[in-house]
Amino acid sequence: MNGAESLLQTLVECGVEVCFTNPGTSEMHFVAALDKQDGMRSVLGLFEGVVTGAADGYARMAGKPACTLLHLGPGLANGLANLHNARRARVPLVNIVGDHATYHRHLDAPLTSNIAGFAEPVSGWIRASESSQSVAADGAAAVAAAMTPPGQIATLILPADTAWGPAAGPARPVVAPARRAPDGAAVDAVAAALRSGERCAVLMNGAALSERGLELAGRIAQKTGAQLFADTFVTRIARGAGRVDVQRVPYFGEQAAEVLAPYRHLILVATKAPVTFFAYPGKPSELTPDGCATHVLSTPEQDTLAALEALCEAVGARNTTPATQTAQKLTLPRGALTAQSAAQTLGCLFPDGAIIVNESATSGFAIPSLTAAAAPHDWLDLTGGAIGQGLPTAVGAAVACPGRRVLALEGDGAGMYTLQALWTMAREGLDVTTVIFANRKYAILQVELLRVGAGNPGRKAEDMLSLSRPDLDWVKLANGMGVPATRATTAEEFNNQLARSLAAPGPGLIEVVL
Amino acid sequence: MNGAESLLQTLVECGVEVCFTNPGTSEMHFVAALDKQDGMRSVLGLFEGVVTGAADGYARMAGKPACTLLHLGPGLANGLANLHNARRARVPLVNIVGDHATYHRHLDAPLTSNIAGFAEPVSGWIRASESSQSVAADGAAAVAAAMTPPGQIATLILPADTAWGPAAGPARPVVAPARRAPDGAAVDAVAAALRSGERCAVLMNGAALSERGLELAGRIAQKTGAQLFADTFVTRIARGAGRVDVQRVPYFGEQAAEVLAPYRHLILVATKAPVTFFAYPGKPSELTPDGCATHVLSTPEQDTLAALEALCEAVGARNTTPATQTAQKLTLPRGALTAQSAAQTLGCLFPDGAIIVNESATSGFAIPSLTAAAAPHDWLDLTGGAIGQGLPTAVGAAVACPGRRVLALEGDGAGMYTLQALWTMAREGLDVTTVIFANRKYAILQVELLRVGAGNPGRKAEDMLSLSRPDLDWVKLANGMGVPATRATTAEEFNNQLARSLAAPGPGLIEVVL
Repeated sequence: MNGAESLLQTLVECGVEVCFTNPGTSEMHFVAALDKQDGMRSVLGLFEGVVTGAADGYARMAGKPACTLLHLGPGLANGLANLHNARRARVPLVNIVGDHATYHRHLDAPLTSNIAGFAEPVSGWIRASESSQSVAADGAAAVAAAMTPPGQIATLILPADTAWGPAAGPARPVVAPARRAPDGAAVDAVAAALRSGERCAVLMNGAALSERGLELAGRIAQKTGAQLFADTFVTRIARGAGRVDVQRVPYFGEQAAEVLAPYRHLILVATKAPVTFFAYPGKPSELTPDGCATHVLSTPEQDTLAALEALCEAVGARNTTPATQTAQKLTLPRGALTAQSAAQTLGCLFPDGAIIVNESATSGFAIPSLTAAAAPHDWLDLTGGAIGQGLPTAVGAAVACPGRRVLALEGDGAGMYTLQALWTMAREGLDVTTVIFANRKYAILQVELLRVGAGNPGRKAEDMLSLSRPDLDWVKLANGMGVPATRATTAEEFNNQLARSLAAPGPGLIEVVL
Repeated sequence: MNGAESLLQTLVECGVEVCFTNPGTSEMHFVAALDKQDGMRSVLGLFEGVVTGAADGYARMAGKPACTLLHLGPGLANGLANLHNARRARVPLVNIVGDHATYHRHLDAPLTSNIAGFAEPVSGWIRASESSQSVAADGAAAVAAAMTPPGQIATLILPADTAWGPAAGPARPVVAPARRAPDGAAVDAVAAALRSGERCAVLMNGAALSERGLELAGRIAQKTGAQLFADTFVTRIARGAGRVDVQRVPYFGEQAAEVLAPYRHLILVATKAPVTFFAYPGKPSELTPDGCATHVLSTPEQDTLAALEALCEAVGARNTTPATQTAQKLTLPRGALTAQSAAQTLGCLFPDGAIIVNESATSGFAIPSLTAAAAPHDWLDLTGGAIGQGLPTAVGAAVACPGRRVLALEGDGAGMYTLQALWTMAREGLDVTTVIFANRKYAILQVELLRVGAGNPGRKAEDMLSLSRPDLDWVKLANGMGVPATRATTAEEFNNQLARSLAAPGPGLIEVVL
C-alpha cells in the first residue's frame, strides 16, 4: 500500500464519500488509488472554483465534509474564492493539495509556490505531510479538524513522494470535539430580556435555521412576542409551507437599520451582531440600534439546538405551537417576463423538497417573498460575497441529495464566473435546473455606484458595469457543455420551460431574458 | 480631487495606459474616475483570471505594466493563478485591489479577508494605502516597484475611504532602479569556457531571447561553436525566418538530460540551472550533467543585452555573422486533420509579425519545429504551469499591439479554465484567432500517470483525465460569447478556416477536432 492509498482508505473510514477534483501530475497516485477504493465517488470539475464550491454545497446538505483534490498552489488558488464563501458558511471541508516531492521543492520548478500561504486566509487547519508513513494519520486529523464545530476548512498538503512512498495502512478515525453545551447564564439572561416587556429581536444563522431550530425559535416567538430574523445571507434555511417563517435582515444598510430600529434587545443565535456589507461614506457600518442591548444565546461553536431548547423551557414555550407558513397557491403569471413574474412562477412551481441555491442578486429581489409559502424547500445563499458560488454549490448539493431537485437561481454576471460547473452537471447527470436571470449587466454595481456617492457613471464607467456588447447567449453556452437549454422571453414561456425542466431527469438551463 | 482620481492620474503619468478590471462596490470611485481620465483604457473581464492573465500578456509585449483593478480578497484570489504565471514570467504588473474602508475592516463583514495574505505568494511588493492623501504616492511607488528589474508584481491595496477621501493631487513618478551592469569577471570566465575547446551550452531566457539578444548570442555561437538553448517555457522569444534559432530544453526530464549530456560547460543567461518540471520516482530532478561546470553570464536582474555585447567583444565575435533561419515554404497539408498536419498548416500560414500564445500542451508537440522557419513572429509560453493562461494572455497581447495578429494555440482542457476571455476579445474587437486543439482529454496526464509509475488507470481514474461524456462544443461556447467560430475535421478545412480567420478583423475561433 502506498501513501495515497492509505490516505484514501482513511478518508473513507472517516466518512468522506466524495472527492471533487481537478488533478495534475503530482496527484496521479491519488487518482490511481481511486480505482482501488469503492467507497469514494470522484467528480471532475473543469476549473477548481467548481471543485471547491461543490464541496461547499455538498457539506451544507450532507452535514459532513467532501474532500477536494487540487493541483499545487495554482490549483488551490483557483478554488480560493469559493473556499472564502465556504469559510463564511462555516462548513466542514477537507482540501487535499498535491505538491512537488519533498526533495524537489527547493529547486523552485515553475509550479512551485507557497501553498500554505495561499491556504492560510481560508483555512482553520493546515498541515503538510512529511512522509508516506504519516499521511494516513494526517488525513484522519484533517477530517477531525474539518468537523470541529461549527465546521471549518482543513487543508492537507500532500507532497508527491508522500503519495507514492510506502505506508503501513490506514489510520484510525479521530473524534472531532463535541459542540460546546449552551451557557446556562446566557440562557437565563436572554429569557429575562424576553420577559422584560421590551421589544426583542432574535437574529439567527447556522443550526437555528434548520427545520428543528426554526420550530423551537417559533415557539419562543409565539410565547414571548419576539421577532425572528435571519442574517441577510445564510448557509442553509428551511423554508416554505409548514415551516416557521423568519424575516431577513435587508441587504442595504438604511433598510436594515430601519427594520431593526424598534428593538431594545438583540438576541444572537449562532451569529454575530449585524454590520453593513460594505461601508458607505457618512453612513454607519454597525446595524445594532443605539441603546439596544445585545445578548449571545449561542455562538456558532456551541450546540445551538440545545440552547434553543433550554430557552424554550426557560420561557415556558415547550408546548407552545409556533406560527407556521400556510401553503398558498399562487397563480401562474401571464404576459411580460419580469423579475417579479419570474419570482411568481417560482413560487408556483418549487417542487416539494427542492434545494434552492440563490445567487440571483438584484434580479431575485422578489423571490424570497413570493416563495415563502411555496412547497417546503431548503435554501442556500452566497455566504461570503465572492460571486461564482451558485452553480458549483448546486453541483455539490445535487451530489449530496440524489432524488431531490436542485434549482440554481443565478445572475448572468455571477454565473459567468464558474460556468464550467454546467459541464459537471451534464457529466454526472445531476438533477439541477439552472435559471439565469439575464439582465446583461452588473445591476447591483449600477445601484452601488450611486450609493457610494461616486456620481453618475460616464460611458467608460458604464461599460465596466455592463455585460452587453456582445450579449451572452446562455443557451449556446449551456449546449456547448452538454446541458439542454431554452430561452424564455414571456411569462408563459418561463412557466412552461420551468415545469418541463423540473420534470425532466438530469440538468437543464433556462435563460430568463429581462 | 479624491484619492481614486489622484491615483489614476498618477498611474497615467507613470506610463500606465491600460486597466484590466472586474470591479465591485469598493472600487466604484476608481471606476468613476476612469471617466475623467482620457489616458487610461479600461478593459472589462468577466472573471479575474482573465484580468490578470491579460495584464501579463500586455506586459510581455509592451515592456511596461498595465494595472488590474480587483474586488477585495476573493477578486484577487480568482486572479492568483495567472499572477503566479506572471511572476514566473518576471513581468512588471500593478494590482490595485479594493478593500473595505479602513474603519470597516475590523467588523469582519462577509467579504473581509486577509488580502495581503492572498497577495504574498505572488507579489514582490505589497502596500495597503493608509489615507486618501497618500494613495497617489503609493501608486507611484507601486509602478516603480513593478518596473524594478527584471519586473515583478506590485500589489496596492486600496481601502474604499482612501479612494473617496480628498487628495491634494497626483504624485510624481518614481524612477525604478536600473538594471545592474554585467559582471566583468563573469564575462571573462564565460569567455574562457567558450575558448576552452570543451563543449559549451548557452541556456537563455528573458532579454536574451529578444531579436537583438538572439543576434548577439548567434554571433557568439557562430564564433565559438557553442550550442544555444532556450528554457522549456519562455516569457517571450523572437522566432521565424531571419531570426537566430535556438533549441528548447525538452519538457520530459529524460529527453532533457540526453540533450544536455554532451556539454562540459553550461552558461546561464537570464535564467537558472535547469530542473525537471515535476519529480518522478527514482529519477533525478536536476538536469545539469555530472561534471558540467555552470557559469552565470547574467542574472535576470542584470542587463542581459549588455552582458551579451561584452561577451561578443570578449570572444571576438563583434563582426561575426550569425546563422539565421532561412524562410522555408511548407506546403499546405491535405487529408486527415492531425496534430502534425495542424502544425504544418500553422507553419504555412503564420502571418508576418504575428504574436503566438502557446498553451497547446501535448497537441502542440510538432508546432515549434514546423514553425521555426515561418514568417517572423513573437512566441509567448505558459511560464508557471498554471493552465488557463493562454486566452487571457492573448487578450493582453492584442491590447498592447493593435495591428498585429495574435494566434492563441490552446488545449481544450486549458482553454476551459478561463474561457471567459473570449467575451473580452469580442467586446474589444481584438484581432485574436484562437485555435482549440480538441482531443477531449487531459492528454498530458494520461502520459504523466504512467511516467510517475502510478500504474494503468482504471475506469474512475480514466474518467478524471477525460473531457468527454459530454464532449465540449467550442463553436457553441465561442458563439455564446459573441466570437465567430468554426469546426475543422480535415486538414483542408483547417487550412481554409485558419486563412479566413487570419484575414478577418476581430476575433475568431477554430475548433480542431483531433
